Amino acid sequence: MDSKFVIGLDYGSDSGRAIVVNALTGETLATAVKNYPRWMEGKYCKPTENQYRQHPQDYIDVLEAIVKEALAKCPAGTAENVVGMAFDTTGSTPAFTDETGTPLAMLPEFAENPNAMFILWKDHTAIKEAAEINKLSKEWETDYTSYEGGIYSSEWFWAKALHVLREDEKVREKAYSIVEYCEWLPAILTGVAASKDVVRSRCANGHKAMWHPKWNGLPSEEFLTTLDPLLGGFRERLFCDTETAEKSVGKLTPEWAERLGLTTNVVVAGGAYDCHMGAVGAGVTPNTLVRVIGTSTCDVMVASHEEIGDNLIKGICGQVDGSVIPGMIGLEAGQSAFGDIYAWFKRVLEFPLKNVIAHSTLIDEATKAKLIEEAADRILIELTKEAEKIPVSESAAVATDWMNGRRTPDANQLLKGTIAGLTLGTTAPHIFRALVEATAFGTKAIVDRFVSEGVKIDNVIGIGGIALKSPFVMQTMSDVLNMPIKVCNTDQACALGAAMFAATAAGVYPKVEDAIAKMNSGFAKEYFPNAENHKVYQSLYAKYKAIGQFTENELFKA
Amino acid sequence: MDSKFVIGLDYGSDSGRAIVVNALTGETLATAVKNYPRWMEGKYCKPTENQYRQHPQDYIDVLEAIVKEALAKCPAGTAENVVGMAFDTTGSTPAFTDETGTPLAMLPEFAENPNAMFILWKDHTAIKEAAEINKLSKEWETDYTSYEGGIYSSEWFWAKALHVLREDEKVREKAYSIVEYCEWLPAILTGVAASKDVVRSRCANGHKAMWHPKWNGLPSEEFLTTLDPLLGGFRERLFCDTETAEKSVGKLTPEWAERLGLTTNVVVAGGAYDCHMGAVGAGVTPNTLVRVIGTSTCDVMVASHEEIGDNLIKGICGQVDGSVIPGMIGLEAGQSAFGDIYAWFKRVLEFPLKNVIAHSTLIDEATKAKLIEEAADRILIELTKEAEKIPVSESAAVATDWMNGRRTPDANQLLKGTIAGLTLGTTAPHIFRALVEATAFGTKAIVDRFVSEGVKIDNVIGIGGIALKSPFVMQTMSDVLNMPIKVCNTDQACALGAAMFAATAAGVYPKVEDAIAKMNSGFAKEYFPNAENHKVYQSLYAKYKAIGQFTENELFKA
Repeated sequence: MDSKFVIGLDYGSDSGRAIVVNALTGETLATAVKNYPRWMEGKYCKPTENQYRQHPQDYIDVLEAIVKEALAKCPAGTAENVVGMAFDTTGSTPAFTDETGTPLAMLPEFAENPNAMFILWKDHTAIKEAAEINKLSKEWETDYTSYEGGIYSSEWFWAKALHVLREDEKVREKAYSIVEYCEWLPAILTGVAASKDVVRSRCANGHKAMWHPKWNGLPSEEFLTTLDPLLGGFRERLFCDTETAEKSVGKLTPEWAERLGLTTNVVVAGGAYDCHMGAVGAGVTPNTLVRVIGTSTCDVMVASHEEIGDNLIKGICGQVDGSVIPGMIGLEAGQSAFGDIYAWFKRVLEFPLKNVIAHSTLIDEATKAKLIEEAADRILIELTKEAEKIPVSESAAVATDWMNGRRTPDANQLLKGTIAGLTLGTTAPHIFRALVEATAFGTKAIVDRFVSEGVKIDNVIGIGGIALKSPFVMQTMSDVLNMPIKVCNTDQACALGAAMFAATAAGVYPKVEDAIAKMNSGFAKEYFPNAENHKVYQSLYAKYKAIGQFTENELFKA
Repeated sequence: MDSKFVIGLDYGSDSGRAIVVNALTGETLATAVKNYPRWMEGKYCKPTENQYRQHPQDYIDVLEAIVKEALAKCPAGTAENVVGMAFDTTGSTPAFTDETGTPLAMLPEFAENPNAMFILWKDHTAIKEAAEINKLSKEWETDYTSYEGGIYSSEWFWAKALHVLREDEKVREKAYSIVEYCEWLPAILTGVAASKDVVRSRCANGHKAMWHPKWNGLPSEEFLTTLDPLLGGFRERLFCDTETAEKSVGKLTPEWAERLGLTTNVVVAGGAYDCHMGAVGAGVTPNTLVRVIGTSTCDVMVASHEEIGDNLIKGICGQVDGSVIPGMIGLEAGQSAFGDIYAWFKRVLEFPLKNVIAHSTLIDEATKAKLIEEAADRILIELTKEAEKIPVSESAAVATDWMNGRRTPDANQLLKGTIAGLTLGTTAPHIFRALVEATAFGTKAIVDRFVSEGVKIDNVIGIGGIALKSPFVMQTMSDVLNMPIKVCNTDQACALGAAMFAATAAGVYPKVEDAIAKMNSGFAKEYFPNAENHKVYQSLYAKYKAIGQFTENELFKA
């Protein structure tokens, strides 16, 4: 029997999903998805303060459920022939651990303390700490942010760690080390029992923790303690080396093999961020921008060492050797909000449903609830239908896409969004169209930055929910960029990428590129730019840039 | 029997209303309102092209209906003791006439031609012609716009006349003269049978037709024919002199007395614009800004000749001797959209009602129609309720009020509105609050202009629907201005002002000021500014001004 199966595990913001894949063909046998149970109850979060925390037990509960469910959907004998598994997760999503590498929230005394949990990527509680890191980096002899785009973000490792250390005396006393979400899951499955033995992710630490070989790993102890003496000692207890994700970190322990219904022959690959593995799942090659398009976007590229040379690419989220494909420089960028902007406008439009119709006495409560739910579900569909009918016009309303700040180019979480060019004739579909165009202009700003920094882009590949489900959004993006955009033939590109890493780690393929060649999903669709629309968009994009400059420099000074 | 009654007739954009008033006490005996029937069918208008025309027959149909209905509600004997009537109307709302002074649309061959009808104040088809007038005025030895704020608007007399002459060959051939809405109604009731005998309104022509004694009336024939030879001959066939509105233009003809159920003893006063008579109805005095606050605002002041001197007040809608109160300079300003901006946002929010719920099959058609109507009616009420709870904040969204262009200061109909400072947490009530604040900032921009041009403002009086019905809007305005605002005790201040002019014209009072003293309604309410809110609004107002400057100079260049 020469069947070899792998399990790709993709852990997103709200849920984890597992796919069981034939490692030789790339065929997906089964998929299972489950939301994080505590997270779905809104626990440990304060949205008004941008505090988003996730309990480690959520990840474990989901893991057992989805692996078993996916395997149960496969033909008999599949589980026995699973040879590898790999995780991709959100990030930077770090948590403090004790000396054993256990996240503090797994200890009974910290079980309900949000500061002892994983600090989700989109948590913005550490804005002040990020600003301090940026200030000190610019003053320091070494700019430790230089391989992370030159601007450190409140969404990243050290800012979050410092913020929690300052906030929480109990966590401060107990904290021994720090682990990233994508490192912790492989570690527990392979029986790691000490923080020092956790295999550290090149992807996570290169992009978000200022790890770089040039300065032998993490920023110097002197830098960290100058930032705050509270950080003293962590560097030594953390790590010097990181590993790329195609390497095995070990095999399943007997306990985990039993809990998951697998064998102890299963190789566990190193972890990486979801979009990075997603780029692999999408078949990334040099000069191709892979966009994971959902609530926000994560944009990933790979480039040869020759192409990048000594170039420090400004204003992106980092350039890291091996963060995507070993031996190549992985480049990351992204928009802080994409689908979230459409969801925001939907929420605005829900006002008459939730604040008016909800109080009507004309219909009974049950019908009302159904009617409101049905209407809410259809808002974006109907908006799209109407917005598509509106011709592209130079005199249209113009918006920026900074309702959740800006990630790339030049991260600034304090920026806000604008809608200009409004008249009494502007309708909800006009505004929606302007918002869709704004997210496309935000894409162009990222593409322009890569190009102006010397990274050529010939192709765009879209993956993620919006890429698959919204032809209107994708066509607008193609028109604005004046570039064709391909959309992958899978709705699980990140999990498929993880499966490719699992197959490589398990020795099915010698290199990640070979796994891509054999296991890729192909493309479902390609969008081609409309030249006339692009011409109009050039003028609207100039307005987008002008509004951006004005709101950044004059109106909402950061 | 010494009872003396007068009828004040207020002709707005959508409807005419009549009030029967005791001329000695100001007490209102009865009110009647009727919408213009053809207008309500949407006839002769093209909203997407900003073409708004009204059929003269609409005005006559309404006149007969409302006068009879109001009289029918009065005690027996009232009609016999009516001594005067006066009209206020929208404007500049001109129509081409034949030699008898009859609007062309009253002739069978022009009955369905929009160019032969009254061109409603808000018709913006003549933007090009207004620009030409502005250009030529600045080059000419006399700047004929200098008493009209220095900028001629597409909403005004000559721009509209020239536009129609260029557009419509048939009208061009037949057109002998031009009449303003507020002049035509008094003329027909008093039996005027020749264009040259129409009594011309000081208010209408001083503010909108560049009439001024300094150049002996209208702009010179040379100026007009340089603008376009099509205007040749009109000046001579029009008029040299204008009259203030407290003067009688004649008595009711036997035919009209019969049609209206009145006597031929009824004196008809001169006509004026609604807001100007509204200011009188509100009890205008020097250093008081009277604001008629509805879909847009019209802001009126009076000042002594001594206070104004030779000052040419820039960027307002004119300074005209006797346009409000005889012997004083009447000053006009206004916001192009006020309540219209709230109505616009309501329309945007109606999307899920009209485009989603309307297609639901969960409830029957009749219930659905009722539900949608009920919900639409409550949107602004619920928005207000929620927006009032939001504290005034420097980090709030900030909007401009230019969704219908800008009238004052410095008319520019090409400007558009902006909403800035949006985040994913911005709700519909946040946006509504920003729009309410924007209309208050627009108010402050007008007040600031008067003050910087040397016209002191101590008091603000509000009249019109929004002044009476929205404490939230009025309190915000008071906080932004840091001034108390009084609201009149009548919802018919314009019609009451017309009644005051009727009483003066009929000789009940020697002067308009005497009519004000005896017939005023008093005040229903006074709003006082909140000092803390005002402090925050100073910072938000600075943002409003910055956005304005940016959109005017950089983004949407006029």
